[in-house]
Amino acid sequence: MPKSVMNKRLRLKRIGIDTYKENVAFMNSNCCVYRAAGFQAMSKVKVTADSRTILAVLNVVLNNSIVSPGELGVSEQAFQQLGLPEGTRVLVDHPEPPASIDAVRRKISGDVLELEDFYGITRDIVENRYSKMEMAAFLVACVETGLERSEVLSYTRAMAATGQRLDWNEPLVADKHCIGGIPGNRTSMIVVPIVAAYGIPIPKTSSRAITSPAGTADTMEVLAEVNLSPERLRQIVKEEKGCLAWGGTSKLAPVDDILITVERPLGIDAPGQMVASILSKKFAAGSTHLLLDIPLGPTAKVRKRDYAHQLRKIFEYVGDRMGIHLEAMITDGTQPIGRGIGPVLEARDVMDVLRNEKEAPQDLKNKALDLAGRIIEFDPDVRGGQGRDIARQILDSGRALAKMEAIIDAQGRKKEMPALGSMVHEVRSHKDGVVAAIDNYALNRIARLAGAPLDKGAGIYLYKKVGDRVEEGEALYRLYSQFEADFNFAKDFIKKHSAGYLIESSPG
Amino acid sequence: MPKSVMNKRLRLKRIGIDTYKENVAFMNSNCCVYRAAGFQAMSKVKVTADSRTILAVLNVVLNNSIVSPGELGVSEQAFQQLGLPEGTRVLVDHPEPPASIDAVRRKISGDVLELEDFYGITRDIVENRYSKMEMAAFLVACVETGLERSEVLSYTRAMAATGQRLDWNEPLVADKHCIGGIPGNRTSMIVVPIVAAYGIPIPKTSSRAITSPAGTADTMEVLAEVNLSPERLRQIVKEEKGCLAWGGTSKLAPVDDILITVERPLGIDAPGQMVASILSKKFAAGSTHLLLDIPLGPTAKVRKRDYAHQLRKIFEYVGDRMGIHLEAMITDGTQPIGRGIGPVLEARDVMDVLRNEKEAPQDLKNKALDLAGRIIEFDPDVRGGQGRDIARQILDSGRALAKMEAIIDAQGRKKEMPALGSMVHEVRSHKDGVVAAIDNYALNRIARLAGAPLDKGAGIYLYKKVGDRVEEGEALYRLYSQFEADFNFAKDFIKKHSAGYLIESSPG
Repeated sequence: MPKSVMNKRLRLKRIGIDTYKENVAFMNSNCCVYRAAGFQAMSKVKVTADSRTILAVLNVVLNNSIVSPGELGVSEQAFQQLGLPEGTRVLVDHPEPPASIDAVRRKISGDVLELEDFYGITRDIVENRYSKMEMAAFLVACVETGLERSEVLSYTRAMAATGQRLDWNEPLVADKHCIGGIPGNRTSMIVVPIVAAYGIPIPKTSSRAITSPAGTADTMEVLAEVNLSPERLRQIVKEEKGCLAWGGTSKLAPVDDILITVERPLGIDAPGQMVASILSKKFAAGSTHLLLDIPLGPTAKVRKRDYAHQLRKIFEYVGDRMGIHLEAMITDGTQPIGRGIGPVLEARDVMDVLRNEKEAPQDLKNKALDLAGRIIEFDPDVRGGQGRDIARQILDSGRALAKMEAIIDAQGRKKEMPALGSMVHEVRSHKDGVVAAIDNYALNRIARLAGAPLDKGAGIYLYKKVGDRVEEGEALYRLYSQFEADFNFAKDFIKKHSAGYLIESSPG
Repeated sequence: MPKSVMNKRLRLKRIGIDTYKENVAFMNSNCCVYRAAGFQAMSKVKVTADSRTILAVLNVVLNNSIVSPGELGVSEQAFQQLGLPEGTRVLVDHPEPPASIDAVRRKISGDVLELEDFYGITRDIVENRYSKMEMAAFLVACVETGLERSEVLSYTRAMAATGQRLDWNEPLVADKHCIGGIPGNRTSMIVVPIVAAYGIPIPKTSSRAITSPAGTADTMEVLAEVNLSPERLRQIVKEEKGCLAWGGTSKLAPVDDILITVERPLGIDAPGQMVASILSKKFAAGSTHLLLDIPLGPTAKVRKRDYAHQLRKIFEYVGDRMGIHLEAMITDGTQPIGRGIGPVLEARDVMDVLRNEKEAPQDLKNKALDLAGRIIEFDPDVRGGQGRDIARQILDSGRALAKMEAIIDAQGRKKEMPALGSMVHEVRSHKDGVVAAIDNYALNRIARLAGAPLDKGAGIYLYKKVGDRVEEGEALYRLYSQFEADFNFAKDFIKKHSAGYLIESSPG
């Protein structure tokens, strides 16, 4: 008489808790299953009914407030995944560890993994079999020993295979991507309308900010809806040739969206991971041609030219084998691009450039033209070196602005741009001199503390850039915040750590 | 008027959920704080009231079943840590990342860490500032690049410093430790009574099984209480010279007990981690002399003699600098020791040896005498080479048995030994021949699947050891289980993977 198995059947109860990407189950500490099976709180359990199975992290409840001893509570997402009515008898058991954990252990011991290993790992992650702890182990293992080129390629293929692939039925589908790290670097919002106006399809999907005060999706969202269904996105690209959407809902290489929830808090940003993450998304997005922007500078992500070259070569190696024509530009990453840092402030810079305003930041404009020119030269009919002139004509003539307005309308124009943060503070130079350097890292940090990107109107507006003369007491930049706590965090950081500016006394 | 800060004050509510070593907070999705502050479900939040602060993982609740919008629910442990009455107004905020995460990031990029870094990391972990994900990142980073000797020493010092240190007021306090991996290897339960009967204090604290089917604490628990307060432990050692207790409640190097909750599911078992974990505990336990057992064999933890030597040298290096006289024995790890695998079966083997029963496993007896002899030679008055004879006399004379009975009584004798699992299955040889090899790893796995160590009576009893002749159909070992599901897991593993025995046909 298999009594123990009988006892393991509990009544399913729905607990309206959203536990993000991890399922949670609740069991009463007086439940016979908890006592007999030796489950540990915060360990994973397998919940089965009929042919359906989910994994969940076990929370153990010391009284009857949430579940009684005969019940198993499951969080909202877990309840949806099971798809069974409340009261269904479910079996709770120890899960088999995900099969691919063996490959993670081999990676930890320094092995080189094969394509099949990466398929197994990415599949298990997408199917929610990994805890964050297990994902962290995998990610750190990949950072540490580093990944061989062959592994980065396998990993990219495996990541791309976790989702669908878009097919645009076009011979040339362009994309651009910046590896990030430079505040204010919102070139995509200028490049996309120029390239689309030229006639090359450029369905740009972007991430939200991970460690920076604004991603392209955060900034575009100030002007238009960015949360578009795949059908809507396809329609817009068909009509306008370009879009500026958030990539999160597109189900392209979805494993990346899960891993990012672990990479972000751990600050993991390793070359192999970066290449696989970027190229799997681009492959899944159906891109045929990709222009990569690799900013180089002492406070950029890439700080040494050698490393920039090494990174470019891994990108090229994997890109070639995935059938993506890839070019990489190593750009100036010594200071922020433009004047605004934070969604609203960056959106203003972008629109000033597109409108050919006199006060538009020239560095942002020039960089966007360089990039757009290179993409236009993906067109076999364009002579090498002519792309930038074509891009410039499109911008100067107002065609880029018109295209941007059309894209905004197509995606869904926001009624009004959010206001800038109402709390302002000017950070001033403590001496006469010249701005010798601006610390990208510090400014990113300050703008985030001030509330960006969650508060769209929070951020920093730069009055001075490298090479500018300043006088003692003159403002270097202005800080904007929506909430007092954030405002104080940002000001504290400036006081205790750094304002991010190096002023050198001018001789004489 | 700092309205946002006002809004962040929620009413504290106690939620009777035991969430093991991680605090959990519950917030309603309609709570203005959740909406305004941009918290993410399953991310960490800082909860402050008066001068008290805790960190907790945020669960977001989609309805009012657990908390209403103005409340913040906290799990049982978090509530205790805050120590404030329900209804107290608490401030919820984004936490600063633990300061020592920077050191973890440096380790991930391959840096060598300093003593201060390890102090910071271990302190933050003990003070509950790390998530499991962050701990996994730290542990894997240490495995991967490996730790320099100097780092292992720093790490050991830092781990030891997270708890108290016992002082026995004795010139010689002995201990033994086996690095594990060999099923049935329960020598401590024979060595401790012999050494204690000789008169050397040997306050042995052991872990429960991590990846094996039984630890010394699990096995001793079959006979006696092992969960002893530090005061009780001290009293027993004073009276009996020895004890066999669980180390988990002793607050010695407590960071290790936290890290183990991450090492266990990830199967992390790296040399630096092992040395720091073992020696920090031994240092904190006040040991002056330590005998290390390093089993070597093709399916042991240590599979190559070179690696065994390397490991021994790291142990010696750190031991010397921590002021512990350390000797390491590289022992035969080619097959299980004794006949029983699993708490009850191993306890029977041990008691058979102590009782000088004819059927007692001789390999277990001989190994225990070797180890006990070496420890007795820590006594400066014992001539080199005489220790084993002394140990043998103590065992043969029944003094070891008497001491064991006294220790059992002192710790609290169990009324009766748990029964063996009621489901049994004999695994038989598929041909005539000789047992050429036994796979420690497979037998550990099978015994764990069968239910050990949680079901004390589950496990394996070996009829045949390496070198024994077997006939086709003759039983190699017997499997015991308490629960049908476990019984089937174990049988499935044997069928699909391996029974753990290599039988070679005898010539002719």
